[in-house]
Amino acid sequence: MTGAHVVLALDLLGTVTFALNGALTATRRVRLDIVGVLALGVVTAIGGGLVRDVLLGATPPAALEHWYYLAAAGAGAMAAWAIARPPRALHRVIVVLDAIGLSVFAVAGAHKAMELGLQPVAAIIMGAITAVGGGTLRDVLVGDVPSVLTSELYAIPALVGAAVAVVAGGVTHHTAPAAVVGAALCFAIRLVGVRFDLHAPAREPRGPRNG
Amino acid sequence: MTGAHVVLALDLLGTVTFALNGALTATRRVRLDIVGVLALGVVTAIGGGLVRDVLLGATPPAALEHWYYLAAAGAGAMAAWAIARPPRALHRVIVVLDAIGLSVFAVAGAHKAMELGLQPVAAIIMGAITAVGGGTLRDVLVGDVPSVLTSELYAIPALVGAAVAVVAGGVTHHTAPAAVVGAALCFAIRLVGVRFDLHAPAREPRGPRNG
Amino acid sequence: MTGAHVVLALDLLGTVTFALNGALTATRRVRLDIVGVLALGVVTAIGGGLVRDVLLGATPPAALEHWYYLAAAGAGAMAAWAIARPPRALHRVIVVLDAIGLSVFAVAGAHKAMELGLQPVAAIIMGAITAVGGGTLRDVLVGDVPSVLTSELYAIPALVGAAVAVVAGGVTHHTAPAAVVGAALCFAIRLVGVRFDLHAPAREPRGPRNG
Repeated sequence: MTGAHVVLALDLLGTVTFALNGALTATRRVRLDIVGVLALGVVTAIGGGLVRDVLLGATPPAALEHWYYLAAAGAGAMAAWAIARPPRALHRVIVVLDAIGLSVFAVAGAHKAMELGLQPVAAIIMGAITAVGGGTLRDVLVGDVPSVLTSELYAIPALVGAAVAVVAGGVTHHTAPAAVVGAALCFAIRLVGVRFDLHAPAREPRGPRNG
Repeated sequence: MTGAHVVLALDLLGTVTFALNGALTATRRVRLDIVGVLALGVVTAIGGGLVRDVLLGATPPAALEHWYYLAAAGAGAMAAWAIARPPRALHRVIVVLDAIGLSVFAVAGAHKAMELGLQPVAAIIMGAITAVGGGTLRDVLVGDVPSVLTSELYAIPALVGAAVAVVAGGVTHHTAPAAVVGAALCFAIRLVGVRFDLHAPAREPRGPRNG
Repeated sequence: MTGAHVVLALDLLGTVTFALNGALTATRRVRLDIVGVLALGVVTAIGGGLVRDVLLGATPPAALEHWYYLAAAGAGAMAAWAIARPPRALHRVIVVLDAIGLSVFAVAGAHKAMELGLQPVAAIIMGAITAVGGGTLRDVLVGDVPSVLTSELYAIPALVGAAVAVVAGGVTHHTAPAAVVGAALCFAIRLVGVRFDLHAPAREPRGPRNG
């Protein structure tokens, strides 16, 4: 098993988890039929990569060209439909697997953007979009303000991980170790954030036109 | 009049109907000015095809390259503005015309995706996105959870029709008959669904973090 | 300083203003953390151009290829975070600068679409999307119905300006003067609309399925 196999395995693990978690999250607040549950699971899993590939002009997107991405996303979403009411213990597992997906997607997304010639800052943003874009689309589709914009420490670890991968990879020309360090840092910050309930500073709403 | 003319005529009929229906649906719940009514009608009519073409890299999208798509969509949306309060009888006509649009869009969208080299499952999903994507965009823009995700038997006929067209076309190499059969099946399932008020199984919301 | 420099300067001025205004608007109604404020400012500033470039197949989009667009957008959004509660006087300055951005984006967007071979009507719509697309994305992300669809005289000046630029440029082959006239007209209509509180005709909601 080469390094590329490991990356693909982690990528697919992230895809399954994002779909499972995405579909479970979507059904928390809104009544959805089976089409909605499956669609929102799949959108959560592959939506970020679709947005990245469309912005990069790398069409058709990887998630539509290789059957295993849709298969992994569909499997995760179907599992969510089957589980319906996830037990408490599953929640913890999902948090860890979701952090793996976040890390892999952020670093791999930034790497692909660099390879396709984007400048570093744009590539870092592409990495974060790959990681958080699917969940953002899901939240918009069910009428929620995306949690990534309001409260959760979710985009920041993705940005940090992508930045480390891009900058360290660019400086040292050792892209693979830089990617591993970036992903590990993203994973660590995300889990520390969940464990200690950390939040970025926020602004309270001011109301219409009062300032 | 060749087969291609028939397909184009049905395609434009679907475009007009989607725009009319989309604009009337958008004005049910939200106050919109004339820009909003026209924009949402046009988005409903051509939005699914835009998403498909962007994902396939077939840019500029067909709906922007050929003047008659924008003209048809604009005409339908303007009709909705002029009608304002549709009489009961119109509703029935719209349901039938909308089902024609759904069927043509699903089959034609899947066909285009196959031609551009997508694998069958992705092509079937592209067909469904062509058919339901515009209405989904409209619902998101007016702040509704897309009805295609919650209740209506709308995506399933599109998926079935696209699947039949793709699979039968791939197996028999008679793409035109396969497309007609797929579209007819989509049309029939959709109308049976409306007539008998059929719904796919659904999940009730669980509330925040209780499971 | 050539004409191209003037256009770029106005383009970046518009980008900064859109980001500042967009981030301030987003924090009016919704609680956002710093990631959300920055992301929504940047989306407001470059979102319309991204949608235009993706639809035209001009990828990667200009806003991601040239560092100064992201820098300008980021600066505007960070200024919004720093200001937090804008004083009354700033509001007036923003309205004028925002109208400049609207005008430049509408005309430049339509021009780019024409250059990439779109037909005139589609190019005019691309101009309007460039100008109003970012604000529309922002409103959708914070759960508002986009104000451009409901009340503000915002899309109409953009459409008029883009139409004048496209038609006058196409007829006279003097694209630069046509663009200046189109932008000036857009700017004037927008400010007259704000000053006299003008609105396009609108439709009141009819409620579910009652017509």
